[in-house]
Amino acid sequence: MEEKSQIQEAIKVQGEVVRKLKSEKASKEQIDEEVAKLLQLKAQLGDDGKHTFVLKTAKETLTGKYGEDSKLIYDLKDQGGELLSLRYDLTVPFARYLAMNKITNIKRYHIAKVYRRDNPAMTRGRYREFYQCDFDIAGQYDAMIPDAECLKIVYEILSELDLGDFRIKVNDRRILDGMFAVCGVPDEKFRTICSTVDKLDKMPWEDVKKEMVNEKGLSEEVADQIGEYVSMQGGMDLAERLLQDQKMSQSKQACAGLSDIKLLLSYLQLFQVTDKVVFDLSLARGLDYYTGVIYEAMLTQAGVAPVAAETPNGAPREETASVGSVAGGGRYDGLVGMFDPKGRKVPCVGVSIGIERIFSIMEQKAEASAERVRTTEVQVMVAAAQKNLLEERLKLITELWNAGIKAELMYKKNPKLLSQLQHCEESGIPLVAILGEQELKDGVVKLRIVATREEVPLIQNLHCVSLQLCTLTQKPTTCFFLFVISAFLLNLYLRFIYTSVLVWEAITFSHPKQSILHVLT
Amino acid sequence: MEEKSQIQEAIKVQGEVVRKLKSEKASKEQIDEEVAKLLQLKAQLGDDGKHTFVLKTAKETLTGKYGEDSKLIYDLKDQGGELLSLRYDLTVPFARYLAMNKITNIKRYHIAKVYRRDNPAMTRGRYREFYQCDFDIAGQYDAMIPDAECLKIVYEILSELDLGDFRIKVNDRRILDGMFAVCGVPDEKFRTICSTVDKLDKMPWEDVKKEMVNEKGLSEEVADQIGEYVSMQGGMDLAERLLQDQKMSQSKQACAGLSDIKLLLSYLQLFQVTDKVVFDLSLARGLDYYTGVIYEAMLTQAGVAPVAAETPNGAPREETASVGSVAGGGRYDGLVGMFDPKGRKVPCVGVSIGIERIFSIMEQKAEASAERVRTTEVQVMVAAAQKNLLEERLKLITELWNAGIKAELMYKKNPKLLSQLQHCEESGIPLVAILGEQELKDGVVKLRIVATREEVPLIQNLHCVSLQLCTLTQKPTTCFFLFVISAFLLNLYLRFIYTSVLVWEAITFSHPKQSILHVLT
Repeated sequence: MEEKSQIQEAIKVQGEVVRKLKSEKASKEQIDEEVAKLLQLKAQLGDDGKHTFVLKTAKETLTGKYGEDSKLIYDLKDQGGELLSLRYDLTVPFARYLAMNKITNIKRYHIAKVYRRDNPAMTRGRYREFYQCDFDIAGQYDAMIPDAECLKIVYEILSELDLGDFRIKVNDRRILDGMFAVCGVPDEKFRTICSTVDKLDKMPWEDVKKEMVNEKGLSEEVADQIGEYVSMQGGMDLAERLLQDQKMSQSKQACAGLSDIKLLLSYLQLFQVTDKVVFDLSLARGLDYYTGVIYEAMLTQAGVAPVAAETPNGAPREETASVGSVAGGGRYDGLVGMFDPKGRKVPCVGVSIGIERIFSIMEQKAEASAERVRTTEVQVMVAAAQKNLLEERLKLITELWNAGIKAELMYKKNPKLLSQLQHCEESGIPLVAILGEQELKDGVVKLRIVATREEVPLIQNLHCVSLQLCTLTQKPTTCFFLFVISAFLLNLYLRFIYTSVLVWEAITFSHPKQSILHVLT
Repeated sequence: MEEKSQIQEAIKVQGEVVRKLKSEKASKEQIDEEVAKLLQLKAQLGDDGKHTFVLKTAKETLTGKYGEDSKLIYDLKDQGGELLSLRYDLTVPFARYLAMNKITNIKRYHIAKVYRRDNPAMTRGRYREFYQCDFDIAGQYDAMIPDAECLKIVYEILSELDLGDFRIKVNDRRILDGMFAVCGVPDEKFRTICSTVDKLDKMPWEDVKKEMVNEKGLSEEVADQIGEYVSMQGGMDLAERLLQDQKMSQSKQACAGLSDIKLLLSYLQLFQVTDKVVFDLSLARGLDYYTGVIYEAMLTQAGVAPVAAETPNGAPREETASVGSVAGGGRYDGLVGMFDPKGRKVPCVGVSIGIERIFSIMEQKAEASAERVRTTEVQVMVAAAQKNLLEERLKLITELWNAGIKAELMYKKNPKLLSQLQHCEESGIPLVAILGEQELKDGVVKLRIVATREEVPLIQNLHCVSLQLCTLTQKPTTCFFLFVISAFLLNLYLRFIYTSVLVWEAITFSHPKQSILHVLT
């Protein structure tokens, strides 16, 4: 083991290397590689007990992960403690957490706020604090199974939310890189050409080609080759065709990616979600830390308002947001290793749902439908028809609250009945329990249905509801009505009983000598 | 209307006044008063359209509200935009929101993170980012009704969480101030003597008295007088006794407070929560913005670990945390007015639940009880007994997911049965659906109960569960069992039917010529 002073010297040198690369705006992988080396050196110092390498949720965690978007990170003022910043997304904190706690396998979702500074050049409609909703599976597993589950989840969410039709594009970093290689793109331009390809969802091919040739220095032939590939989309058939493609098959990397895409699509078929999935070679997501499969979900409905340049789905480069993009993600096998002193890798795959965008769409739909949306779940308003009935209202509402019924009353000693009823109509409260002097003498509370304005007398003691139901059964129509419902319900109960017994025994961890099931079967 | 230049001059002068007061560490009320004047002047400028007074969630919102604790606020670095800070609690943001949106009546709860910097002198166990859980009622209402509801809510929460016995202390700022006045405390020392009284939950009276006399300059007689009062606690009787007290009754303020305490206690009696409520004259909460009733809830169980000096219930002054304090709040009628350019007041009352502290206690209890706590809600593990059954597992799990059952599978092509079963035991998954080659041929899936290790064959198509239940009914024991359960359930159904009809008609806003209820009754 090297002497401490030698390590400290090495740290100084390595620190310089990192600073130099950063000022030269070297490629992200280079910087990250050197940062990792630096962290490893520092960790070596830790082994002698003098300096402990403690991974903190500190500013250094966020640097070097977002490339150009680092300037969008909110830093906290230096007030004498350690330098802190606010998290930019939920993925980097997740990776840091895994490394810090030496976790090798975990599956979790996280719904929380993230913080991004306004880009001073683009200040309109920019969220500075907004929700992200992430789901990630970390661990060394057999290929594509967790990746397929992430896509199944996106499909389920978008289907259930009733946002209209959607598509999920899938692609793979290795296919993109392999494609660039066989088309003749120089290695060091992969990332930057990838960014340009990424603009295809916002710009027509001619403009994208222009950028490749004029700004990024590709020859027209190379650009045209790329153009042929990135216009391809399909399913399993496309993956198979490309594996046979003369050019593409030359790249081992691309073939690995294509095989995995085939595997993924076969799993998605079993998950019954292929109807909305498209293998699309033009998909190139912004974040550099993706290493394998990548995907993006988009709504296809016309009439969806254009999204602000902020990407709600997690990609920090604003240009990545396509109109209608509501979710995105992919596999990122190298990120956790960047936080581990020994560089231990934990493969991860995940997806981020753009819930702020989805909220906007749902709000637009609600407004368009002129449907009333309640802001509370109050079921019963406890009201008084005359003055001096506050005490009775407080008593009744206490009974209702104790019985788990959501009730409220006006915070006035002598509110007018009309005001109380108006409040119900405005708030959408469906029922009113009205107390009145005469009714109190008769031992009755009037239950008013706000929608129909009908009133039903109820015996004040709600536990006597059953008594009232007994009176109902004296009528023949009622009996028939009850019979029909009961027969239907009985069927459901039988199913319920069987499953309940199983679950009950499981939950109570009971070890009966003779399980109820033995009795039953 | 004054000329613009005159207003600008006045703003400059007022700004100086504020700065001077702050540097002199003047009393909080004075500072806030002058800040409000300053804001009003600035607002006047806004009226001419040149400068719009826009209430932003900015750094200025937080200054002047927390007194000495302003140094615990996290400021964001000046990166070229407006100066921002992170919120310190949920109450000031709430007040700001009301003023900004000109809301006069609202009732809301808010569970979210708040941010407090380490006090460099006390760094141990200090949360920097933690959850608060607030409930507030804003609006002009009749006295004590919303205040009583806040206490009912605290009582309900603490009872349901099963944390053991608790007490809720109540007092009133007006009673405290009135008491200080009649005891002979000079006006300008009210706040600082209040802070000292607040330490009674942590220090014995002798030490508190010493601080009053030696540090705060009260005479021994005055301190003794205070001592007599602050040792009093009771209920309605104490409030009545104090209203007759020769000294106390001289203060109009105190009498108003005492009358309100009586009113509050009468409402709490109707809410059935007085068994845990104590009117305690020693309660003096830290926050200066309380104007009326104040309360604090404490657990009384022995063996509860001492709380970190951080107060989880919202009081920014660390000294306020008593051992076992889990909630606190009160009425604050002046806060919203500080954010309104015209100084319009909106009376508010609220409570903050110390959920971080409650979490600690619940965690300790869970550990002590050695009860297993699951981290997922997975109901069924989809497993395979042999190799090459991944496709079948994916198909079955898709059926289960589509049916809304929480299921998972191992992300391996050929996992060992034992590993899958072990995973269930570790995660507490109660059921395993085991696929096997022979069973597949027989069209059967084995359902294994993890707790008992028994296995039950199920026909693969889960929709056929009912068929299997039919076979059950051929056994006499089963019939009896089902009969008993059905009779019980039938009773519940009748009650359910009656209520459902009412609710259904309310929800569907139906106007039947003859309501079903007319038919039934």
